[in-house]
Amino acid sequence: MMEPMRGTLLTDLYQLTMLQSYVDHGMTETAVFELFVRKLPGPRGFLVAAGLEQALQFLEALQLSPEEHDWLAASGRFSRELLDCLAGLRFTGDVHAMPEGTVFFADEPILRVTAPLPQAQLVESRLINLLHYQTLIASKAVRCVLVAPDRTLVDFGLRRAHGAEAGLLAARASYLAGFAGTATVLADMQFGIPSFGTMAHSYIEAHDVEEAAFAHFARSCPENVVLLIDTYDTEAAAHKVVELAPGLREEGIGIRSVRIDSGDLVAHAKQVRAILDAGGLREVGIFSSGSLDEYALRELLDAGAPIDGFGIGTHLDTSNDAPYLDCAYKLEEYAGRARRKRSENKATWPGRKQVYRQYDAGGRMQRDILTREGDVQEGQPLLQPVMQDGRRLHSPESLKTLRTRSAKELERLPAHLRQLRSEPAYPVMIADALKALAGEVDERLEVMN
Amino acid sequence: MMEPMRGTLLTDLYQLTMLQSYVDHGMTETAVFELFVRKLPGPRGFLVAAGLEQALQFLEALQLSPEEHDWLAASGRFSRELLDCLAGLRFTGDVHAMPEGTVFFADEPILRVTAPLPQAQLVESRLINLLHYQTLIASKAVRCVLVAPDRTLVDFGLRRAHGAEAGLLAARASYLAGFAGTATVLADMQFGIPSFGTMAHSYIEAHDVEEAAFAHFARSCPENVVLLIDTYDTEAAAHKVVELAPGLREEGIGIRSVRIDSGDLVAHAKQVRAILDAGGLREVGIFSSGSLDEYALRELLDAGAPIDGFGIGTHLDTSNDAPYLDCAYKLEEYAGRARRKRSENKATWPGRKQVYRQYDAGGRMQRDILTREGDVQEGQPLLQPVMQDGRRLHSPESLKTLRTRSAKELERLPAHLRQLRSEPAYPVMIADALKALAGEVDERLEVMN
Repeated sequence: MMEPMRGTLLTDLYQLTMLQSYVDHGMTETAVFELFVRKLPGPRGFLVAAGLEQALQFLEALQLSPEEHDWLAASGRFSRELLDCLAGLRFTGDVHAMPEGTVFFADEPILRVTAPLPQAQLVESRLINLLHYQTLIASKAVRCVLVAPDRTLVDFGLRRAHGAEAGLLAARASYLAGFAGTATVLADMQFGIPSFGTMAHSYIEAHDVEEAAFAHFARSCPENVVLLIDTYDTEAAAHKVVELAPGLREEGIGIRSVRIDSGDLVAHAKQVRAILDAGGLREVGIFSSGSLDEYALRELLDAGAPIDGFGIGTHLDTSNDAPYLDCAYKLEEYAGRARRKRSENKATWPGRKQVYRQYDAGGRMQRDILTREGDVQEGQPLLQPVMQDGRRLHSPESLKTLRTRSAKELERLPAHLRQLRSEPAYPVMIADALKALAGEVDERLEVMN
Repeated sequence: MMEPMRGTLLTDLYQLTMLQSYVDHGMTETAVFELFVRKLPGPRGFLVAAGLEQALQFLEALQLSPEEHDWLAASGRFSRELLDCLAGLRFTGDVHAMPEGTVFFADEPILRVTAPLPQAQLVESRLINLLHYQTLIASKAVRCVLVAPDRTLVDFGLRRAHGAEAGLLAARASYLAGFAGTATVLADMQFGIPSFGTMAHSYIEAHDVEEAAFAHFARSCPENVVLLIDTYDTEAAAHKVVELAPGLREEGIGIRSVRIDSGDLVAHAKQVRAILDAGGLREVGIFSSGSLDEYALRELLDAGAPIDGFGIGTHLDTSNDAPYLDCAYKLEEYAGRARRKRSENKATWPGRKQVYRQYDAGGRMQRDILTREGDVQEGQPLLQPVMQDGRRLHSPESLKTLRTRSAKELERLPAHLRQLRSEPAYPVMIADALKALAGEVDERLEVMN
């Protein structure tokens, strides 16, 4: 089984130089860090939390390999004391988090780490790396699901995903968000995500005659006959499918669908639908792919394209219209004192926080309240304990559970956020208790700095 | 050592369903596939080939793990014959490629695979995945290098890179393209790329007093004193640095530079430079970071910001202004016959191809000629044999060699492509011999389809 890359040195060098100073100066008291998104990217009205499972796996397995330790020692950059400390490194802290599939908004922590400062610091880079990417992709994928809730949506993005792990985790994040499956075989093997796929243009081209390619495929994969019809002439190929069908039927082979990957998809789908229907192939579906995203889906469906399923590739796996989130993992408390950063345009709310969500009478999300932990508000608290003293509190949630949660969350979205619109922004109120804490921290900072 | 993810099932399901049909119908003759970019993304006037080393490692190591084999067998989707064939699978083909660091343009193959059809087909998804991403990042990174050739540029992008492999390979691709190094420790360990880094805002915040944070750090990491000064008040912190410096100097510790990560970088850098200079710290540099890319660098330098080095993170590792390339891996020949796809707007040039590059008297790239292999043209042929019968022809190139090549390529660029401009497009001519071949293929297709 191919595991996610686990290297503890998959981190930024500054984590280690900071650790050197923390260890030198005995700064190993409890730190609290929270991970949140500062500002939603323009096209997004909400985000969907994802990647917690991989984040917890990472924390549970945290340990320097002997090879990593030797390399650090040989670098000459770190003291013997720090190296000894790293040799025994394990994650022994607590984690609170929003469950995967939860909708969230700017400034709301989706993960809180409470641990001795060096541990909590060291894990920053990889925690962000894991939670950022899956959250990015789940948040893109749900938009496709909202546009085409009754169509089959499949992740086709591996080849242009940014590396292996992105390809694999995009399959997970999009499935969690409501996709039907992925083309990536390893995601099926590793996560049990249904895999889809039939043939590429190269398959058709390798045959001298297109009909032969179709017939060969149908006989080799009779359970899964989806024929790619746009290699040379889409409508001509649809006629060939009609001609082939009766013979295949006699052999007990049904054609499931045809795939169109280029050209004017609305026009082609309509013509192909007419050809198939006239040829008695009403049960054969049309599957489409090629530079698709939620905007293209919206246009295709608005134009009445008779397409039953979509392969969404590059634009999904790269989240092309918003390829990153402005997320951060910030120190909120150390040694019992709330902390905050006040850099221009990047100031953060201090202290351990909780998010309360309030719903209207119809069960739709109405507003969130961000406050300090312990300041109980009306509504549902979204951050829950998931790890204590380095051990998980629950067994991993199944992807089925996550899909159900995510679907339920979409139902509860305010109406306009179900429409690909990001305005008006969903209201996230800052509780007085949190404002007061920020004021206290600022006063202390002004006295001391 | 953490290796790139090697799973052979990190592929699209259709590769396996096609293999089922190829094996059933004895289609195992030699196929030729080429990998190229159909169209450059709007902001790019040229691309830089990267990722070949990882692609060759992937091909050399290609082999189904016993676990993968068992899983495929248990899926019930594939015949015993195909499973046996996959059990013995190794890559036995030839590869031609442009060396890493080579500048290239639309329609030009950067890799050609010549192998029995099932092998050449199966490796498609991962080959694209590996070459696409590093090429994407190298092509972004060189733009920063062109804008700021005499500044220290460092990859800061791990946390928001799309997964672990992206973070690691972005460090490699940007170093290859001329960056000074990366913050990612594992890239140093694995590739020997110089790593940079000192402290985060959390480090400052964990201390009650900013001066104490600075002093602690300087004593813990005396060789590498770069102080982050924008946590609370940038100019006030610069004054603190001036006050600290004499005491540290007495201890034999020099301050290397200060880092500014937020606010108006031009204004802050100028003020901080003045404060440092007035305080006798002319030798202390200014390093800057925060949402930087080639456009921001251009503005900062045009505005005369006295900044010596830049950390380029998210925008580099996600190539935010062009997060993917329209690349493809296409069948060009099978069983001795040239092939081509004629899908609308996606037609390809058939056959095995070569790219010849011609230079003007000053050594600048003048034009490229794309032609069929064997049609010798004036100029330098860019595709070279790198693997034969599954074995590499050369030992891996060092990153130093790749950096030298990349730098030389940038010197040879036409003047306007050194200016972040993508227009006018660099001329890539199609040779008559290639047009004639395309005509022959079309005639054959029309007769047979």
